Amino acid sequence: MQNTAVIADSIYLDHQSAAPVFTEAFEILKQYSVEPFSPTSLHQRGIISKKVLQPALEMIAAFLGCEESELVFTGGIWEAVVLGIEGFWRKNAFKNKHILTTPIEQKPLLLLLERLKREGALVSYLPVDKEGFIDPLSIEQLATDQTVLCCVQWVNPEIGTVQNLEAIAHVCLNKGITLFCDGAYAGGWIPIDLKRHPVSFLAINPNQFNGPKGIGILYVKKGIKIEPIIPGLSGDFGFWGGTENIAAVLATAKAAEITSQIFKEKVEKIGELQKYLWNNLQSYIPLIALNGPKLGPNRSVQNLNISPEYIGGESQVLSCGLKGVMISSGPSCVERNLRISHVFKALGLGYNRAMSSIRISLGTTTTKEEIERFIEIYSEVVSKLREMSIGWKKFLSTKKDQ
Amino acid sequence: MQNTAVIADSIYLDHQSAAPVFTEAFEILKQYSVEPFSPTSLHQRGIISKKVLQPALEMIAAFLGCEESELVFTGGIWEAVVLGIEGFWRKNAFKNKHILTTPIEQKPLLLLLERLKREGALVSYLPVDKEGFIDPLSIEQLATDQTVLCCVQWVNPEIGTVQNLEAIAHVCLNKGITLFCDGAYAGGWIPIDLKRHPVSFLAINPNQFNGPKGIGILYVKKGIKIEPIIPGLSGDFGFWGGTENIAAVLATAKAAEITSQIFKEKVEKIGELQKYLWNNLQSYIPLIALNGPKLGPNRSVQNLNISPEYIGGESQVLSCGLKGVMISSGPSCVERNLRISHVFKALGLGYNRAMSSIRISLGTTTTKEEIERFIEIYSEVVSKLREMSIGWKKFLSTKKDQ
Repeated sequence: MQNTAVIADSIYLDHQSAAPVFTEAFEILKQYSVEPFSPTSLHQRGIISKKVLQPALEMIAAFLGCEESELVFTGGIWEAVVLGIEGFWRKNAFKNKHILTTPIEQKPLLLLLERLKREGALVSYLPVDKEGFIDPLSIEQLATDQTVLCCVQWVNPEIGTVQNLEAIAHVCLNKGITLFCDGAYAGGWIPIDLKRHPVSFLAINPNQFNGPKGIGILYVKKGIKIEPIIPGLSGDFGFWGGTENIAAVLATAKAAEITSQIFKEKVEKIGELQKYLWNNLQSYIPLIALNGPKLGPNRSVQNLNISPEYIGGESQVLSCGLKGVMISSGPSCVERNLRISHVFKALGLGYNRAMSSIRISLGTTTTKEEIERFIEIYSEVVSKLREMSIGWKKFLSTKKDQ
Repeated sequence: MQNTAVIADSIYLDHQSAAPVFTEAFEILKQYSVEPFSPTSLHQRGIISKKVLQPALEMIAAFLGCEESELVFTGGIWEAVVLGIEGFWRKNAFKNKHILTTPIEQKPLLLLLERLKREGALVSYLPVDKEGFIDPLSIEQLATDQTVLCCVQWVNPEIGTVQNLEAIAHVCLNKGITLFCDGAYAGGWIPIDLKRHPVSFLAINPNQFNGPKGIGILYVKKGIKIEPIIPGLSGDFGFWGGTENIAAVLATAKAAEITSQIFKEKVEKIGELQKYLWNNLQSYIPLIALNGPKLGPNRSVQNLNISPEYIGGESQVLSCGLKGVMISSGPSCVERNLRISHVFKALGLGYNRAMSSIRISLGTTTTKEEIERFIEIYSEVVSKLREMSIGWKKFLSTKKDQ
């Protein structure tokens, strides 16, 4: 089996698809995986809960501002989303109840709600503006006395929109609506304090703060009951069914610990790089548009989604790939087909803008040197692709004629 | 965070709870986790599918004797079980249909069927004998014209029973019943050739053949349709929803590759150690009973479940734990409470036999030295615990009186 997929000297700007795991977190994963280690041995469990697991759970709880007993660990972020939404729906044996969500949630969540529709749920979609924001007050307007659940994403991974979760949570609280928040792209990048954000559910992806893959976290507010998706959910630590993946929990705690320590500095650094990148791209590349909110507190510092006119997103991604630069032409679950993503459809920015869009996503390891090299390579890619673009040629000749 | 849970010089005989990951498999996991690496970048995906992922999928398919397109990768073994059973049930929108299973399946599977009961399923339990075997012909006897599914475990992790899957599969095939097989403890230990075992579903736990945790495999026979549990299941590689955990798939392939190479030798070696262990325990410890089938082809070479009379399983496990020996007093999902496991209940061996039982499970890394030290330590533990046992004292005095 060859292992040649990681290209030497490559520039990785696809952190919102998958992020590198901290070496320190990986070492812990290794320690509890390669060495024989069973979390279920009666004796070892005692040692673990006192010396190792308990502090790890405390670390993760502190990271989110909640209690250890409010954490459930699953096999991944989508398992956490399904456990929260479907587990809540099943536990309450809802029929003909009303759910609110936004049209820019990630596809698996929207498909899950489609499934609940077949089980009698009524689903309404809160309107989003051209930057992806919902108006918290629209929840009040669309809610009926049958509304039981509102599913809102904190950070959109395609266009970087950061919703005003605090306002949304308070509206839901006032209306007695249970709020599920997909925090996959918030954890590690937005200050999270669940005491201040009164959501009922929050799904977190440890890999997005450089923790391991194969694990997801679901925060379930004390008092909220859910039906397990994988039956056999243990009461002990609130784990997902089956034998606990202790190694992944410990590695997640290490990633949370490191992230807490570097958080402010990291977000500032990446925010600066994001600004530097966008300013330079604007000055080097004519006719380039930013998709999503303007840079600042309401946009994820990781995310830059741009549309250089007259050239396709896929050709940009492939051309960059040939030069060792990894970017994306949409979120991971959308780009397999060439249709416009449902997010762009909801924004109403038009077909051309969507088709020419690419996503650059920065991460913890991103350096200024990488950004500088990227600006150079990408500007060249855009200019070469435009040389071959009929639309661009037409535009130039129109311009000349003027 | 302290990492002191792995005891130095410990003897790990709890491989059926969690197995150590092959160093080679872990290195691959590391390579594709610590280095920035996204499986969803359009460019990288091309490289992966041609150079890395395709051979990995072929390796895993060859390991199971199936085709790559018949594999679905999930976040763990239980996700695979739920995806197979519930996904099949949902896809066919069954109502009032009949399911066959055994009373010695693992708890999460039995709980899942309880859930389906609430959705209208009728569930019958095939009788098991005192060694845990079902009679394949009992499927014919219990099946009705409403029977759509039969869920049978290949290898029981508590008492080591290896069912005659070939016979079971043929009965199901004749009766037109879809067969779901929980192969969690078969993969890597029983020769698997899905061409010879015509099951419709087979769930496999890569960790049991020293692959990584956080990944499960579901074989879905070509032509069988299931509804995804995590919506957004990609058609490309047949993965579970969300971004693919490529690193774990590649590490699984490496573990499958190594296991294929060492399979015969490993099973022979562990089988010899199992015999050596049982023969010695019998000669050193009076009044000790074997639970499950006699050693041989119908018992997993990994598993020894024994009951030394007059002392409790938990006290044996704890006493061994204090001496650095890790064994188990039941399967991982049962031992949290002190009730008798559902498996022992089904065997009908009586309360005392169940309460005094422990499980020793051998694995790839187990050595003869470990087994020898274990025999010594365990014999001492049993003898010390019996000194404190009122039952044992009564027994001795009865014996003296005779």
